[in-house]
Amino acid sequence: MSELRWNPLLGEWVITATHRQDRTFLPPKDFCPLCPTRPGGPPTEIAREDFDVVVFDNRFPSLQADPPAPAVNGTELTPVAPAAGACEVVVYTPRHEGSLRDASLGRLRRLIAVWSDRTTQLAHRPGVEYVFIFENKGEVIGVTLAHPHGQIYAYPFVPPVVAREVAQGEAHRSKTGGCLWCDVREQERADDRRVIFEAAGWTATVPFFARWPYEVHLMPGRHVGFLSELGAHERDGLALTMKAVLAKYDRLFGFSLPYVMAIHQAPVGTDASDAYHLHFEFYPPNRTESKLKYLAGSETGAGAFINDTLPEETASKLRSLEPMTAEAVRAER
Amino acid sequence: MSELRWNPLLGEWVITATHRQDRTFLPPKDFCPLCPTRPGGPPTEIAREDFDVVVFDNRFPSLQADPPAPAVNGTELTPVAPAAGACEVVVYTPRHEGSLRDASLGRLRRLIAVWSDRTTQLAHRPGVEYVFIFENKGEVIGVTLAHPHGQIYAYPFVPPVVAREVAQGEAHRSKTGGCLWCDVREQERADDRRVIFEAAGWTATVPFFARWPYEVHLMPGRHVGFLSELGAHERDGLALTMKAVLAKYDRLFGFSLPYVMAIHQAPVGTDASDAYHLHFEFYPPNRTESKLKYLAGSETGAGAFINDTLPEETASKLRSLEPMTAEAVRAER
Repeated sequence: MSELRWNPLLGEWVITATHRQDRTFLPPKDFCPLCPTRPGGPPTEIAREDFDVVVFDNRFPSLQADPPAPAVNGTELTPVAPAAGACEVVVYTPRHEGSLRDASLGRLRRLIAVWSDRTTQLAHRPGVEYVFIFENKGEVIGVTLAHPHGQIYAYPFVPPVVAREVAQGEAHRSKTGGCLWCDVREQERADDRRVIFEAAGWTATVPFFARWPYEVHLMPGRHVGFLSELGAHERDGLALTMKAVLAKYDRLFGFSLPYVMAIHQAPVGTDASDAYHLHFEFYPPNRTESKLKYLAGSETGAGAFINDTLPEETASKLRSLEPMTAEAVRAER
Repeated sequence: MSELRWNPLLGEWVITATHRQDRTFLPPKDFCPLCPTRPGGPPTEIAREDFDVVVFDNRFPSLQADPPAPAVNGTELTPVAPAAGACEVVVYTPRHEGSLRDASLGRLRRLIAVWSDRTTQLAHRPGVEYVFIFENKGEVIGVTLAHPHGQIYAYPFVPPVVAREVAQGEAHRSKTGGCLWCDVREQERADDRRVIFEAAGWTATVPFFARWPYEVHLMPGRHVGFLSELGAHERDGLALTMKAVLAKYDRLFGFSLPYVMAIHQAPVGTDASDAYHLHFEFYPPNRTESKLKYLAGSETGAGAFINDTLPEETASKLRSLEPMTAEAVRAER
């Protein structure tokens, strides 16, 4: 059973998806459903011996192209709707071990092309209002499969965080005539202290207003709303910037850093002249090597974030970490 | 160092409080700072051999009455402000073991009186716009002290979640002339399936639009905005309803259930005729006995909650659990 229920107190849809309780939970490597099917081995989601980047429908989707009718009746106060949309899995590599940080620049470029294509395809489906690409990494984030992968959700609504960004972007444009993200990026670059990496117009910063200790935003210099608008040089820059940030993350505490990666593209049907600007956000939960930031009362009950670190200090740490050796960069190019 | 930084992408203040990184972290019982000071023992926060309910300033506050000047300069795009307000600790009991569930009805009534008094006191401080009472319970929520206690934050702004509720309440009143919470409560009672307990006009439900599997809301039948507006009979009802819900929670999986408890009163300066209605929200992180719901990509990156359970089913489980034995209720009264 799966449906959307309207939360009238917060003005947002809640996705109810009960079949997900039994989803595969941290299977041993030999039973990983995201590995290529081995000759003589158990079948996996990917019936090939090798692959590059693979996308397929999530077997435990919260949103789907042909959703069941809602199991409950809505009211004017609390409407219900079918859980229409899509949930896709993006497997980054046939290798079970490792993480996105291990992907070559070539693989990252192909992954960016896949993200871009899927966004365009899903945006054309009737009823899809937002395509959200993300990755949950690490058991402390609640990941149920260790194999390096990300996800794509196609929502039948503009989700609350993006809706707030859109409203903020529109208010900023009305007030100043400019783009909110272009202006934030310009301010970060002028200050410079929180910039941790730059390549081909892409800027990676711990933003001045970070909510998480090691939160990093990636912004392209050119005002675009979608991955599909990026040119070849900008895609190269994005791949290099991602690789640099992920390498810094893994050197920070000496282990593969957990994070949520959120790719914020414009809502479906807007274009680059609208007041939105493509950007990536990374939220690692660690506030120290051994302590996590929890979303507790202030964050979940009131929505007020407390950051126990200074963005200038966490940025300084990330900035000082070499993203990779010079030879590694040369080998990658 | 401590300050407020404006997040222009989301339109909200972020509290930066770097001195909290070194706060006391799960000390052994003999060093619990919330226990009464024992004769000959180390000093604690409470220099008494016994007490009932105690409130004092948090030693590691993110907001304080006399905050330092911000350590960074703001801009028009990203203003900064002093982290003014208050962070208080409410110790429920001198007993180190146990939880709020063990409090007698008499102790709960006194706790409600303390909450009510502190709200009124803090609301009178210049600059305080919202008084938020909450409890983080359990190590999986990130609690750093095991001794049963809650917290009070006095924010110099209306925090985002409450601001959204206020906006929704006002929109509902404009549209229908009624109170959003009164109408939600009426609908829940008419449907009845998700009501898990009622006493003295208080209704406890797993709301139709629950975002967490065992989320429970407590609403008074009378339209009030603040705890201080409750009469003696309504306070008795609240104490009994809290005790019943907490007892059900602890019987659900056979262990003391972790949760965030958020008490939503009206913003400072509004009154009961305004479009807000006092209510309690409980969010336990467990989706099963052994599995937690994590706030991952969809929730933190997009703001779209996925609930892997049906509210009708989780409510049915909670409803069927006897809150306490008949003798215990009689003994309590």
